[in-house]
Amino acid sequence: MIYELYYWPTIQGRGEFVRLSLEEAAADYVDVARQPARQGMGTPALLRALEDGALAQPAFAPPFLKAGKLVIGQTANILQFLGPRHGLAPRAEAGRLWTHQLQLTIADLVAEAHDTHHPIASNLYYEEQKAAARQRAADFTRHRMPKYLGYFEQILERNPRRGGYLAGGRLSYADLSLFQMVEGLRYAFPRAMARLESGHPRLIALHDRIAARPRIAAYLSSSRRLPFSEEGIFRHYPELDT
Amino acid sequence: MIYELYYWPTIQGRGEFVRLSLEEAAADYVDVARQPARQGMGTPALLRALEDGALAQPAFAPPFLKAGKLVIGQTANILQFLGPRHGLAPRAEAGRLWTHQLQLTIADLVAEAHDTHHPIASNLYYEEQKAAARQRAADFTRHRMPKYLGYFEQILERNPRRGGYLAGGRLSYADLSLFQMVEGLRYAFPRAMARLESGHPRLIALHDRIAARPRIAAYLSSSRRLPFSEEGIFRHYPELDT
Repeated sequence: MIYELYYWPTIQGRGEFVRLSLEEAAADYVDVARQPARQGMGTPALLRALEDGALAQPAFAPPFLKAGKLVIGQTANILQFLGPRHGLAPRAEAGRLWTHQLQLTIADLVAEAHDTHHPIASNLYYEEQKAAARQRAADFTRHRMPKYLGYFEQILERNPRRGGYLAGGRLSYADLSLFQMVEGLRYAFPRAMARLESGHPRLIALHDRIAARPRIAAYLSSSRRLPFSEEGIFRHYPELDT
Repeated sequence: MIYELYYWPTIQGRGEFVRLSLEEAAADYVDVARQPARQGMGTPALLRALEDGALAQPAFAPPFLKAGKLVIGQTANILQFLGPRHGLAPRAEAGRLWTHQLQLTIADLVAEAHDTHHPIASNLYYEEQKAAARQRAADFTRHRMPKYLGYFEQILERNPRRGGYLAGGRLSYADLSLFQMVEGLRYAFPRAMARLESGHPRLIALHDRIAARPRIAAYLSSSRRLPFSEEGIFRHYPELDT
Protein backbone atom coordinates (compact mmCIF):
# COMPACT_ATOMS: atom_id res chain seq x y z
CA MET A 1 0.00 0.00 0.00
CA ILE A 2 1.20 3.49 -0.84
CA TYR A 3 0.27 6.18 1.66
CA GLU A 4 -0.99 9.49 0.34
CA LEU A 5 -0.09 12.50 2.46
CA TYR A 6 -2.21 15.58 1.91
CA TYR A 7 -0.60 18.79 3.07
CA TRP A 8 0.30 22.24 1.80
CA PRO A 9 3.11 21.86 -0.72
CA THR A 10 5.29 24.85 0.13
CA ILE A 11 5.72 24.67 3.91
CA GLN A 12 6.96 22.25 6.53
CA GLY A 13 4.10 23.11 8.89
CA ARG A 14 2.31 20.34 10.74
CA GLY A 15 2.77 18.02 7.79
CA GLU A 16 6.47 17.85 8.54
CA PHE A 17 5.88 15.76 11.66
CA VAL A 18 4.22 13.16 9.44
CA ARG A 19 6.87 13.41 6.74
CA LEU A 20 9.63 12.73 9.26
CA SER A 21 7.97 9.54 10.49
CA LEU A 22 7.27 8.35 6.94
CA GLU A 23 10.89 9.02 6.00
CA GLU A 24 12.36 7.26 9.04
CA ALA A 25 10.06 4.31 8.32
CA ALA A 26 11.16 4.28 4.65
CA ALA A 27 7.45 4.01 3.94
CA ASP A 28 6.07 4.22 0.42
CA TYR A 29 4.27 7.54 0.29
CA VAL A 30 3.25 10.27 -2.08
CA ASP A 31 3.27 13.87 -0.89
CA VAL A 32 0.25 14.57 -3.07
CA ALA A 33 0.21 18.35 -3.27
CA ARG A 34 3.91 18.41 -4.16
CA GLN A 35 3.36 16.33 -7.28
CA PRO A 36 2.46 17.89 -10.65
CA ALA A 37 -1.10 19.08 -11.13
CA ARG A 38 -0.92 17.73 -14.69
CA GLN A 39 -0.69 14.25 -13.17
CA GLY A 40 -3.91 14.89 -11.25
CA MET A 41 -2.09 15.88 -8.09
CA GLY A 42 -0.68 19.17 -6.81
CA THR A 43 -2.61 21.73 -4.78
CA PRO A 44 -5.79 21.15 -6.82
CA ALA A 45 -5.87 17.54 -5.60
CA LEU A 46 -5.41 18.72 -2.00
CA LEU A 47 -8.26 21.21 -2.35
CA ARG A 48 -10.49 18.64 -4.02
CA ALA A 49 -9.86 16.18 -1.19
CA LEU A 50 -10.52 18.90 1.41
CA GLU A 51 -13.81 19.90 -0.20
CA ASP A 52 -14.95 16.44 -1.25
CA GLY A 53 -18.64 16.46 -0.37
CA ALA A 54 -18.87 12.69 -0.75
CA LEU A 55 -16.37 12.05 2.04
CA ALA A 56 -18.17 10.86 5.18
CA GLN A 57 -15.18 11.58 7.40
CA PRO A 58 -13.56 14.80 6.16
CA ALA A 59 -10.65 16.35 8.01
CA PHE A 60 -11.05 19.81 9.53
CA ALA A 61 -7.69 20.83 8.06
CA PRO A 62 -4.54 19.33 6.53
CA PRO A 63 -2.54 17.24 7.13
CA PHE A 64 -4.46 14.06 6.49
CA LEU A 65 -3.27 10.69 5.35
CA LYS A 66 -4.95 8.22 3.04
CA ALA A 67 -4.03 4.65 3.92
CA GLY A 68 -6.05 2.28 1.81
CA LYS A 69 -9.68 3.00 2.67
CA LEU A 70 -8.79 5.03 5.76
CA VAL A 71 -8.51 8.81 5.73
CA ILE A 72 -6.90 9.96 8.97
CA GLY A 73 -6.68 13.56 10.14
CA GLN A 74 -5.00 15.43 13.01
CA THR A 75 -1.21 15.18 13.06
CA ALA A 76 -0.91 13.33 16.37
CA ASN A 77 -3.60 10.90 15.31
CA ILE A 78 -1.83 10.13 12.04
CA LEU A 79 1.34 9.44 14.00
CA GLN A 80 -0.33 7.11 16.44
CA PHE A 81 -1.69 5.22 13.45
CA LEU A 82 1.71 5.00 11.74
CA GLY A 83 3.77 4.36 14.86
CA PRO A 84 2.96 0.74 15.64
CA ARG A 85 2.93 -0.18 11.93
CA HIS A 86 6.51 0.94 11.42
CA GLY A 87 8.25 0.21 14.70
CA LEU A 88 7.97 3.86 15.75
CA ALA A 89 5.89 3.30 18.89
CA PRO A 90 6.09 0.93 21.85
CA ARG A 91 4.02 -2.23 21.43
CA ALA A 92 2.24 -2.24 24.79
CA GLU A 93 -0.76 -0.01 25.42
CA ALA A 94 0.88 1.88 28.30
CA GLY A 95 3.83 2.82 26.12
CA ARG A 96 1.60 3.84 23.25
CA LEU A 97 -0.48 6.11 25.45
CA TRP A 98 2.64 7.71 26.88
CA THR A 99 4.12 8.30 23.43
CA HIS A 100 0.87 9.87 22.29
CA GLN A 101 0.70 12.04 25.40
CA LEU A 102 4.15 13.41 24.59
CA GLN A 103 3.13 14.02 20.98
CA LEU A 104 0.06 15.97 22.11
CA THR A 105 2.26 18.08 24.37
CA ILE A 106 4.54 18.84 21.43
CA ALA A 107 1.40 19.74 19.45
CA ASP A 108 0.46 22.23 22.17
CA LEU A 109 3.86 23.89 21.91
CA VAL A 110 3.56 24.02 18.12
CA ALA A 111 0.19 25.79 18.39
CA GLU A 112 1.69 28.29 20.83
CA ALA A 113 4.68 28.87 18.54
CA HIS A 114 2.26 29.62 15.70
CA ASP A 115 0.34 32.07 17.82
CA THR A 116 3.46 34.11 18.59
CA HIS A 117 3.17 35.57 15.08
CA HIS A 118 -0.61 35.25 14.83
CA PRO A 119 -2.00 36.05 18.28
CA ILE A 120 -5.16 37.70 16.96
CA ALA A 121 -6.27 35.86 13.83
CA SER A 122 -4.85 33.33 11.38
CA ASN A 123 -6.57 35.07 8.49
CA LEU A 124 -4.86 38.41 9.08
CA TYR A 125 -1.28 39.15 8.06
CA TYR A 126 1.47 39.18 10.63
CA GLU A 127 1.93 42.87 9.90
CA GLU A 128 -1.62 43.50 11.05
CA GLN A 129 -1.00 42.00 14.50
CA LYS A 130 2.60 42.92 15.13
CA ALA A 131 2.12 44.71 18.45
CA ALA A 132 0.24 41.81 20.00
CA ALA A 133 2.74 39.39 18.46
CA ARG A 134 5.62 41.13 20.22
CA GLN A 135 3.88 40.75 23.56
CA ARG A 136 2.90 37.14 23.00
CA ALA A 137 6.34 36.20 21.74
CA ALA A 138 7.98 37.82 24.75
CA ASP A 139 5.89 35.65 27.04
CA PHE A 140 6.61 32.60 24.88
CA THR A 141 10.38 32.96 24.93
CA ARG A 142 10.49 33.98 28.60
CA HIS A 143 8.00 31.55 30.12
CA ARG A 144 6.56 28.97 27.76
CA MET A 145 9.69 27.80 25.93
CA PRO A 146 11.60 27.20 29.18
CA LYS A 147 8.61 25.36 30.62
CA TYR A 148 8.23 23.03 27.63
CA LEU A 149 11.95 22.46 27.12
CA GLY A 150 12.40 21.83 30.83
CA TYR A 151 9.57 19.33 30.74
CA PHE A 152 11.06 17.28 27.91
CA GLU A 153 14.53 17.44 29.44
CA GLN A 154 13.06 16.04 32.65
CA ILE A 155 11.31 13.24 30.75
CA LEU A 156 14.62 12.24 29.19
CA GLU A 157 16.32 12.41 32.56
CA ARG A 158 13.70 10.29 34.29
CA ASN A 159 13.30 7.63 31.63
CA PRO A 160 14.47 4.46 33.38
CA ARG A 161 15.53 3.01 30.01
CA ARG A 162 18.92 4.50 29.30
CA GLY A 163 18.79 4.86 25.53
CA GLY A 164 18.23 8.60 25.57
CA TYR A 165 14.78 8.40 23.95
CA LEU A 166 11.57 9.91 25.26
CA ALA A 167 9.46 6.76 25.57
CA GLY A 168 10.98 3.45 26.51
CA GLY A 169 14.30 2.22 25.15
CA ARG A 170 13.73 2.73 21.43
CA LEU A 171 13.10 5.46 18.93
CA SER A 172 9.46 6.58 18.58
CA TYR A 173 7.59 9.12 16.49
CA ALA A 174 7.67 11.45 19.51
CA ASP A 175 11.48 11.59 19.27
CA LEU A 176 11.24 12.55 15.60
CA SER A 177 8.72 15.24 16.50
CA LEU A 178 10.98 16.53 19.25
CA PHE A 179 13.74 16.87 16.67
CA GLN A 180 11.43 18.98 14.50
CA MET A 181 10.37 21.06 17.49
CA VAL A 182 14.01 21.91 18.25
CA GLU A 183 14.67 22.66 14.57
CA GLY A 184 11.68 24.98 14.45
CA LEU A 185 12.53 26.80 17.66
CA ARG A 186 16.12 27.27 16.51
CA TYR A 187 14.90 28.76 13.24
CA ALA A 188 12.28 31.04 14.76
CA PHE A 189 14.00 32.02 18.00
CA PRO A 190 17.76 31.59 17.60
CA ARG A 191 18.61 34.03 20.38
CA ALA A 192 16.23 32.48 22.88
CA MET A 193 17.47 29.01 21.96
CA ALA A 194 21.11 30.06 22.29
CA ARG A 195 20.28 31.00 25.88
CA LEU A 196 18.33 27.83 26.63
CA GLU A 197 20.16 25.01 24.91
CA SER A 198 23.00 24.54 27.39
CA GLY A 199 20.47 23.92 30.16
CA HIS A 200 18.87 21.09 28.18
CA PRO A 201 21.72 18.79 27.20
CA ARG A 202 19.65 15.58 26.84
CA LEU A 203 17.16 17.26 24.56
CA ILE A 204 19.88 18.63 22.30
CA ALA A 205 21.72 15.31 22.29
CA LEU A 206 18.54 13.54 21.20
CA HIS A 207 17.99 16.14 18.48
CA ASP A 208 21.53 15.59 17.22
CA ARG A 209 21.20 11.82 17.19
CA ILE A 210 17.97 12.05 15.21
CA ALA A 211 19.62 14.36 12.70
CA ALA A 212 22.41 11.81 12.24
CA ARG A 213 20.14 8.84 11.56
CA PRO A 214 20.87 7.75 8.00
CA ARG A 215 17.33 8.07 6.66
CA ILE A 216 16.70 11.36 8.39
CA ALA A 217 20.06 12.76 7.27
CA ALA A 218 19.30 11.67 3.69
CA TYR A 219 15.87 13.27 3.88
CA LEU A 220 17.17 16.54 5.32
CA SER A 221 19.67 16.93 2.52
CA SER A 222 17.14 16.02 -0.18
CA SER A 223 14.82 18.31 -2.08
CA ARG A 224 11.91 16.65 -0.28
CA ARG A 225 12.81 18.66 2.82
CA LEU A 226 11.31 22.10 2.35
CA PRO A 227 13.09 25.03 3.96
CA PHE A 228 11.68 26.94 6.92
CA SER A 229 10.10 30.20 5.87
CA GLU A 230 7.86 33.04 6.97
CA GLU A 231 4.86 31.17 5.57
CA GLY A 232 5.06 28.26 8.00
CA ILE A 233 4.41 27.69 11.67
CA PHE A 234 7.93 28.49 12.86
CA ARG A 235 8.78 31.93 11.49
CA HIS A 236 11.84 34.01 12.07
CA TYR A 237 10.94 37.61 12.82
CA PRO A 238 13.95 39.04 14.68
CA GLU A 239 11.72 41.44 16.62
CA LEU A 240 9.94 38.45 18.20
CA ASP A 241 13.15 36.73 19.30
CA THR A 242 14.15 38.45 22.52
CA MET B 1 -10.28 -0.39 40.21
CA ILE B 2 -11.13 3.17 41.19
CA TYR B 3 -9.92 5.85 38.81
CA GLU B 4 -8.32 8.95 40.29
CA LEU B 5 -8.90 12.13 38.31
CA TYR B 6 -6.46 14.96 38.99
CA TYR B 7 -7.73 18.36 37.98
CA TRP B 8 -8.28 21.82 39.42
CA PRO B 9 -11.10 21.64 41.93
CA THR B 10 -12.97 24.88 41.21
CA ILE B 11 -13.40 24.92 37.44
CA GLN B 12 -14.88 22.74 34.71
CA GLY B 13 -11.94 23.40 32.39
CA ARG B 14 -10.45 20.56 30.41
CA GLY B 15 -11.15 18.16 33.25
CA GLU B 16 -14.86 18.42 32.49
CA PHE B 17 -14.48 16.42 29.29
CA VAL B 18 -13.10 13.56 31.37
CA ARG B 19 -15.73 13.97 34.10
CA LEU B 20 -18.53 13.68 31.55
CA SER B 21 -17.22 10.39 30.19
CA LEU B 22 -16.64 8.99 33.66
CA GLU B 23 -20.18 9.98 34.65
CA GLU B 24 -21.81 8.53 31.54
CA ALA B 25 -19.84 5.33 32.11
CA ALA B 26 -20.94 5.25 35.77
CA ALA B 27 -17.28 4.56 36.46
CA ASP B 28 -15.89 4.46 39.98
CA TYR B 29 -13.74 7.55 40.26
CA VAL B 30 -12.46 10.06 42.75
CA ASP B 31 -12.10 13.70 41.73
CA VAL B 32 -9.05 13.97 43.93
CA ALA B 33 -8.60 17.72 44.32
CA ARG B 34 -12.28 18.13 45.22
CA GLN B 35 -11.96 15.85 48.24
CA PRO B 36 -10.92 17.15 51.67
CA ALA B 37 -7.25 17.93 52.20
CA ARG B 38 -7.54 16.46 55.70
CA GLN B 39 -8.16 13.10 54.02
CA GLY B 40 -4.90 13.47 52.12
CA MET B 41 -6.58 14.80 49.01
CA GLY B 42 -7.64 18.29 47.89
CA THR B 43 -5.46 20.72 45.96
CA PRO B 44 -2.34 19.71 47.97
CA ALA B 45 -2.65 16.17 46.58
CA LEU B 46 -2.97 17.56 43.04
CA LEU B 47 0.12 19.72 43.49
CA ARG B 48 2.07 16.85 45.04
CA ALA B 49 1.20 14.61 42.11
CA LEU B 50 2.15 17.36 39.63
CA GLU B 51 5.51 17.95 41.28
CA ASP B 52 6.30 14.34 42.16
CA GLY B 53 9.97 14.02 41.27
CA ALA B 54 9.80 10.23 41.48
CA LEU B 55 7.26 9.98 38.65
CA ALA B 56 8.93 8.75 35.46
CA GLN B 57 6.02 9.90 33.30
CA PRO B 58 4.75 13.20 34.68
CA ALA B 59 2.01 15.13 32.91
CA PHE B 60 2.77 18.58 31.55
CA ALA B 61 -0.46 19.89 33.08
CA PRO B 62 -3.75 18.65 34.54
CA PRO B 63 -5.95 16.80 33.86
CA PHE B 64 -4.37 13.42 34.33
CA LEU B 65 -5.92 10.15 35.34
CA LYS B 66 -4.50 7.41 37.52
CA ALA B 67 -5.78 4.01 36.49
CA GLY B 68 -4.02 1.34 38.51
CA LYS B 69 -0.35 1.71 37.67
CA LEU B 70 -1.00 3.96 34.66
CA VAL B 71 -0.90 7.75 34.86
CA ILE B 72 -2.37 9.21 31.67
CA GLY B 73 -2.23 12.87 30.68
CA GLN B 74 -3.69 15.01 27.89
CA THR B 75 -7.48 15.17 27.84
CA ALA B 76 -7.97 13.51 24.45
CA ASN B 77 -5.53 10.76 25.40
CA ILE B 78 -7.39 10.04 28.64
CA LEU B 79 -10.62 9.78 26.66
CA GLN B 80 -9.19 7.39 24.11
CA PHE B 81 -8.05 5.24 27.00
CA LEU B 82 -11.45 5.29 28.70
CA GLY B 83 -13.57 5.01 25.57
CA PRO B 84 -13.11 1.35 24.62
CA ARG B 85 -13.20 0.29 28.28
CA HIS B 86 -16.64 1.75 28.85
CA GLY B 87 -18.43 1.36 25.55
CA LEU B 88 -17.78 4.99 24.65
CA ALA B 89 -15.76 4.37 21.49
CA PRO B 90 -16.19 2.16 18.43
CA ARG B 91 -14.48 -1.19 18.69
CA ALA B 92 -12.70 -1.25 15.34
CA GLU B 93 -9.49 0.69 14.81
CA ALA B 94 -10.90 2.86 12.02
CA GLY B 95 -13.75 4.02 14.25
CA ARG B 96 -11.43 4.65 17.16
CA LEU B 97 -9.12 6.78 15.05
CA TRP B 98 -12.06 8.76 13.70
CA THR B 99 -13.48 9.37 17.17
CA HIS B 100 -10.09 10.53 18.38
CA GLN B 101 -9.68 12.80 15.36
CA LEU B 102 -12.98 14.49 16.25
CA GLN B 103 -11.91 14.83 19.88
CA LEU B 104 -8.64 16.48 18.83
CA THR B 105 -10.59 18.92 16.67
CA ILE B 106 -12.81 19.78 19.65
CA ALA B 107 -9.60 20.26 21.66
CA ASP B 108 -8.39 22.75 19.06
CA LEU B 109 -11.60 24.74 19.39
CA VAL B 110 -11.29 24.67 23.18
CA ALA B 111 -7.77 26.09 22.99
CA GLU B 112 -8.97 28.84 20.68
CA ALA B 113 -11.90 29.63 22.99
CA HIS B 114 -9.41 30.00 25.85
CA ASP B 115 -7.24 32.32 23.83
CA THR B 116 -10.14 34.71 23.17
CA HIS B 117 -9.70 35.98 26.74
CA HIS B 118 -5.97 35.25 26.97
CA PRO B 119 -4.50 36.06 23.55
CA ILE B 120 -1.18 37.32 24.94
CA ALA B 121 -0.29 35.24 27.98
CA SER B 122 -1.96 32.77 30.33
CA ASN B 123 -0.08 34.19 33.28
CA LEU B 124 -1.43 37.70 32.84
CA TYR B 125 -4.91 38.75 33.90
CA TYR B 126 -7.64 39.19 31.33
CA GLU B 127 -7.73 42.88 32.22
CA GLU B 128 -4.10 43.18 31.10
CA GLN B 129 -4.87 41.91 27.59
CA LYS B 130 -8.36 43.23 27.01
CA ALA B 131 -7.69 45.09 23.78
CA ALA B 132 -6.12 42.09 22.09
CA ALA B 133 -8.87 39.88 23.54
CA ARG B 134 -11.54 41.98 21.85
CA GLN B 135 -9.84 41.56 18.51
CA ARG B 136 -9.25 37.86 18.89
CA ALA B 137 -12.78 37.23 20.12
CA ALA B 138 -14.24 39.14 17.19
CA ASP B 139 -12.38 36.86 14.80
CA PHE B 140 -13.40 33.83 16.83
CA THR B 141 -17.13 34.58 16.79
CA ARG B 142 -17.10 35.78 13.17
CA HIS B 143 -14.89 33.15 11.54
CA ARG B 144 -13.74 30.34 13.79
CA MET B 145 -16.98 29.43 15.57
CA PRO B 146 -18.93 29.18 12.29
CA LYS B 147 -16.15 27.10 10.77
CA TYR B 148 -16.01 24.61 13.65
CA LEU B 149 -19.76 24.40 14.15
CA GLY B 150 -20.29 23.98 10.42
CA TYR B 151 -17.73 21.21 10.38
CA PHE B 152 -19.43 19.20 13.12
CA GLU B 153 -22.87 19.78 11.62
CA GLN B 154 -21.54 18.39 8.35
CA ILE B 155 -20.09 15.34 10.11
CA LEU B 156 -23.48 14.60 11.63
CA GLU B 157 -25.16 15.10 8.28
CA ARG B 158 -22.75 12.81 6.45
CA ASN B 159 -22.64 10.01 8.99
CA PRO B 160 -24.12 7.08 7.10
CA ARG B 161 -25.33 5.57 10.40
CA ARG B 162 -28.56 7.39 11.19
CA GLY B 163 -28.39 7.57 14.97
CA GLY B 164 -27.47 11.23 15.12
CA TYR B 165 -24.07 10.58 16.67
CA LEU B 166 -20.70 11.81 15.45
CA ALA B 167 -18.92 8.48 14.99
CA GLY B 168 -20.79 5.38 13.90
CA GLY B 169 -24.21 4.46 15.21
CA ARG B 170 -23.62 4.73 18.95
CA LEU B 171 -22.72 7.27 21.57
CA SER B 172 -18.99 7.98 21.96
CA TYR B 173 -16.87 10.21 24.14
CA ALA B 174 -16.69 12.68 21.25
CA ASP B 175 -20.46 13.20 21.50
CA LEU B 176 -20.12 13.97 25.21
CA SER B 177 -17.34 16.41 24.43
CA LEU B 178 -19.45 18.06 21.74
CA PHE B 179 -22.17 18.57 24.35
CA GLN B 180 -19.66 20.32 26.59
CA MET B 181 -18.38 22.41 23.70
CA VAL B 182 -21.91 23.68 22.99
CA GLU B 183 -22.50 24.33 26.70
CA GLY B 184 -19.28 26.30 26.92
CA LEU B 185 -19.92 28.35 23.81
CA ARG B 186 -23.45 29.15 24.99
CA TYR B 187 -22.09 30.34 28.31
CA ALA B 188 -19.25 32.40 26.88
CA PHE B 189 -20.83 33.71 23.69
CA PRO B 190 -24.64 33.66 24.09
CA ARG B 191 -25.21 36.28 21.42
CA ALA B 192 -23.00 34.61 18.85
CA MET B 193 -24.58 31.24 19.61
CA ALA B 194 -28.10 32.69 19.34
CA ARG B 195 -27.17 33.70 15.79
CA LEU B 196 -25.57 30.39 14.90
CA GLU B 197 -27.68 27.68 16.49
CA SER B 198 -30.54 27.62 14.00
CA GLY B 199 -28.08 26.87 11.21
CA HIS B 200 -26.79 23.81 13.05
CA PRO B 201 -29.87 21.75 13.94
CA ARG B 202 -28.15 18.35 14.13
CA LEU B 203 -25.50 19.66 16.48
CA ILE B 204 -28.07 21.19 18.81
CA ALA B 205 -30.25 18.09 18.67
CA LEU B 206 -27.27 15.96 19.68
CA HIS B 207 -26.47 18.35 22.51
CA ASP B 208 -30.04 18.13 23.77
CA ARG B 209 -30.12 14.34 23.61
CA ILE B 210 -26.89 14.14 25.59
CA ALA B 211 -28.29 16.50 28.22
CA ALA B 212 -31.32 14.24 28.57
CA ARG B 213 -29.39 11.01 29.10
CA PRO B 214 -30.22 9.83 32.62
CA ARG B 215 -26.67 9.72 33.97
CA ILE B 216 -25.71 13.01 32.38
CA ALA B 217 -28.91 14.70 33.59
CA ALA B 218 -28.26 13.38 37.09
CA TYR B 219 -24.68 14.63 36.96
CA LEU B 220 -25.63 18.07 35.68
CA SER B 221 -28.09 18.59 38.51
CA SER B 222 -25.67 17.30 41.16
CA SER B 223 -23.12 19.25 43.14
CA ARG B 224 -20.41 17.37 41.26
CA ARG B 225 -21.08 19.61 38.25
CA LEU B 226 -19.23 22.86 38.87
CA PRO B 227 -20.71 26.04 37.40
CA PHE B 228 -19.09 27.91 34.53
CA SER B 229 -17.18 30.95 35.72
CA GLU B 230 -14.65 33.58 34.75
CA GLU B 231 -11.87 31.34 36.06
CA GLY B 232 -12.37 28.59 33.50
CA ILE B 233 -11.77 28.13 29.81
CA PHE B 234 -15.17 29.34 28.65
CA ARG B 235 -15.67 32.80 30.18
CA HIS B 236 -18.49 35.19 29.70
CA TYR B 237 -17.22 38.69 29.11
CA PRO B 238 -20.06 40.53 27.32
CA GLU B 239 -17.61 42.77 25.49
CA LEU B 240 -16.13 39.68 23.77
CA ASP B 241 -19.49 38.35 22.60
CA THR B 242 -20.28 40.30 19.47
